[in-house]
Amino acid sequence: MKNIRVSDILLSEAEVESLVVKGWVRTKRESKEFVFLEINDGSCLKNLQAIVAADASGFELMDRVGTGAAVSLKGALVESPGQGQKWELKVRELELLGEADATYPLQKKRHTDEYLRTIAHLRPRTNKYGALNRIRAELSFGVHQFFREQGFFHVHAPIITGSDCEGAGEMFQITTLDLANVPKKNGKADFEQDFFGKEASLTVSGQLAAENLACALGRVYTFGPTFRAENSNTPKHAAEFWMIEPEMAFADLEDNMDLGEDCIKWLITHLLDNCRDDLELFGNFVDKGLFATLDNILAKPFIRLPYAEAVTILKNAPRTFEFPVDFGTDLQTEHERYLTEDHFKQPVIVFDYPKEIKAFYMRLNDDGKTVGAMDVLVPRIGELIGGSAREERLSVLERRIEELGLPKEEYWWYLDLRRFGSVPHAGFGMGFERLLMLVTGIANIRDVIPFPRTPRHLEF
Amino acid sequence: MKNIRVSDILLSEAEVESLVVKGWVRTKRESKEFVFLEINDGSCLKNLQAIVAADASGFELMDRVGTGAAVSLKGALVESPGQGQKWELKVRELELLGEADATYPLQKKRHTDEYLRTIAHLRPRTNKYGALNRIRAELSFGVHQFFREQGFFHVHAPIITGSDCEGAGEMFQITTLDLANVPKKNGKADFEQDFFGKEASLTVSGQLAAENLACALGRVYTFGPTFRAENSNTPKHAAEFWMIEPEMAFADLEDNMDLGEDCIKWLITHLLDNCRDDLELFGNFVDKGLFATLDNILAKPFIRLPYAEAVTILKNAPRTFEFPVDFGTDLQTEHERYLTEDHFKQPVIVFDYPKEIKAFYMRLNDDGKTVGAMDVLVPRIGELIGGSAREERLSVLERRIEELGLPKEEYWWYLDLRRFGSVPHAGFGMGFERLLMLVTGIANIRDVIPFPRTPRHLEF
Repeated sequence: MKNIRVSDILLSEAEVESLVVKGWVRTKRESKEFVFLEINDGSCLKNLQAIVAADASGFELMDRVGTGAAVSLKGALVESPGQGQKWELKVRELELLGEADATYPLQKKRHTDEYLRTIAHLRPRTNKYGALNRIRAELSFGVHQFFREQGFFHVHAPIITGSDCEGAGEMFQITTLDLANVPKKNGKADFEQDFFGKEASLTVSGQLAAENLACALGRVYTFGPTFRAENSNTPKHAAEFWMIEPEMAFADLEDNMDLGEDCIKWLITHLLDNCRDDLELFGNFVDKGLFATLDNILAKPFIRLPYAEAVTILKNAPRTFEFPVDFGTDLQTEHERYLTEDHFKQPVIVFDYPKEIKAFYMRLNDDGKTVGAMDVLVPRIGELIGGSAREERLSVLERRIEELGLPKEEYWWYLDLRRFGSVPHAGFGMGFERLLMLVTGIANIRDVIPFPRTPRHLEF
Repeated sequence: MKNIRVSDILLSEAEVESLVVKGWVRTKRESKEFVFLEINDGSCLKNLQAIVAADASGFELMDRVGTGAAVSLKGALVESPGQGQKWELKVRELELLGEADATYPLQKKRHTDEYLRTIAHLRPRTNKYGALNRIRAELSFGVHQFFREQGFFHVHAPIITGSDCEGAGEMFQITTLDLANVPKKNGKADFEQDFFGKEASLTVSGQLAAENLACALGRVYTFGPTFRAENSNTPKHAAEFWMIEPEMAFADLEDNMDLGEDCIKWLITHLLDNCRDDLELFGNFVDKGLFATLDNILAKPFIRLPYAEAVTILKNAPRTFEFPVDFGTDLQTEHERYLTEDHFKQPVIVFDYPKEIKAFYMRLNDDGKTVGAMDVLVPRIGELIGGSAREERLSVLERRIEELGLPKEEYWWYLDLRRFGSVPHAGFGMGFERLLMLVTGIANIRDVIPFPRTPRHLEF
């Protein structure tokens, strides 16, 4: 690279006689003799202060250098006499790369998150969304590093799928048929003429594919986009989001809980070590309690609580819930948050749910009533992880598929895993965006995704 | 983890009195006094040899322990007196986790790639596809490591898109409308009633989104699935594949070529350092020339060749091409392969293509005829990378969009990048599967994807 990034420049250990910095002007201040420019190139939260004297080459362009303009500055890096920064750039040559006139939408003032969503192509240029995107990148890398260190292989589960694997959610259909003129056969769409010769959808989970690969490679994880065509306009739901799904052969529910807890703690520690400046922005301006929350998650082992006990706690809770709780009902966000925020005041892993409210592939417990499922609940978010031991016994799995009236023939390959060298195995799914909301304090999922997709919103 | 992986066991530096290994039986050999089992758990190519004597607990199960069965073995790790392995496990307790009867499709014999595609859920249990999946995982990690070390931030470009950004390829449509009964308005499908309230498709490239983020964060890359609804049944095309797309602000075509070349070389070196055993399988059984090819890529700087000179070379070539070449024609795979395999015998970067055969966003050169595009050509694959400097000048970009009759209003946000603080920038796309084909010698893209999607094929 010909130019050095601001993040590297700020780490300099000595003055530099000549260097070039390229970036965008965040602020411009004029004094009698100098113009002070704060330059940011996106590499870090901090700006580099540049001082341009009237005799600098290109100074005559200064009138056109406003907030948002892109500039190239050549000069000397010197110790700053001023407060608040170690280094500053004494500019010898200024080059204007791209103007940003007075219509630039990010002029110096506070903008609401709602407004910034309408200019999602520009919002990463703000301090807040720059920081968010850097944290998103580092958290993403951390996911890969954690699982690799734990002996997991990254696998890519298919995005386009021919079966509704879980019955977990409403799916988007994919087609190349002409929607204005869909060919029909017996009153139904004739998918024989479609690209794949059959119905196709966007995946809701990579789990079943990951199970296949775990039963060959031992430990694997997927980390890819998943989709829900649910018409939910909530701060926690998006139609497109990224999910982390590890799957372990030769593992049971306890291994699964250990992995989930280790993973969350490792990733938070990784961010605290690698994104301190960016996290502090969120601790200062978005959620004053952010660091206390994160420290609290790291402080102790997570509570591990059988579902039946969770129900007892909720029934005895000194408050009224919108949705009543009884053994057999699914927990709502209000219940999950009560357990983790009010009752235990720390993360809680609820396990052994009634089989009726969980998916067909979860391992039936010996009581015949519950399955080896687990949800990891964290403050503010509620469910961050959902997972289970998988039913590895062929006959039990077949019976569950029949009980639920699922099309057994579609699962022939999934059943083969239990027919040939079956092993106890377990895994979970963690919503990447929910994790980001946890570690930044951001309250709306639309603000942790660069270009979010929600009902009736498909911009950029 | 309670059990230790085979890859870790084989690295042991001392005998171990007691350990548990869990895995699948690859081969079983019986002698008078012992049964020898080769155990693999997917963690590496090598097996662990286990010796079970008749007095081992669970020996009576041995009749049911065949190829493919899953077992748990407890015993002592001792130095092996036999040839070919340092360690072996003297088994004290055998537990049968899952049988695999005689109908198990991977009985000991060679299977064709075509047959294995029909059992894609089991093929990663073979040596070849186990190795492929481990290489795929390590290459994927390498991509993240390389770009992070180079100061790039990983960003997630949206998968569902409202615009055909490039006009690059045929797209899959996404809908929640009932295909048997699509609502109509003026004879057309009424997308007002669809999930997003407008037409939606699967992305063909994350580039435009990446450009947005590069113009805020400096250096970014995407690494995600992309889609083409092309009815091409070739060994190089899949409907769903993963693409790596870096984008750099303050960079020109030369920076872009440097990055592409560095990236390929770094990743190959990373694999040679981290996946030696698995690569050797491909060097021995799939492509005898594999290591020579890889060494040759690392040996010298890539040739950098203007398109016009490439055309001259091709016109003077001592062979006949199926497609004739002249200035203004796009290069076909046969031409690309001639340049890299026959003429130069090393990777070649062809640049400065005629504007007519390249996309609207590529930077117009001063000659008014060519654009700052580049393709990296490698042996056997042809085009591995395609990229360009992006047109950063608002007026030039607008003129190109008009010339090509593209809907300018759809690009308002893309044009904003040139309106506000525009900067020279460049980037490329590298097909992850083609890279995998290059480093393994595998000839068909269907064999480097766990569950490939191609026309009329949507299995698993």
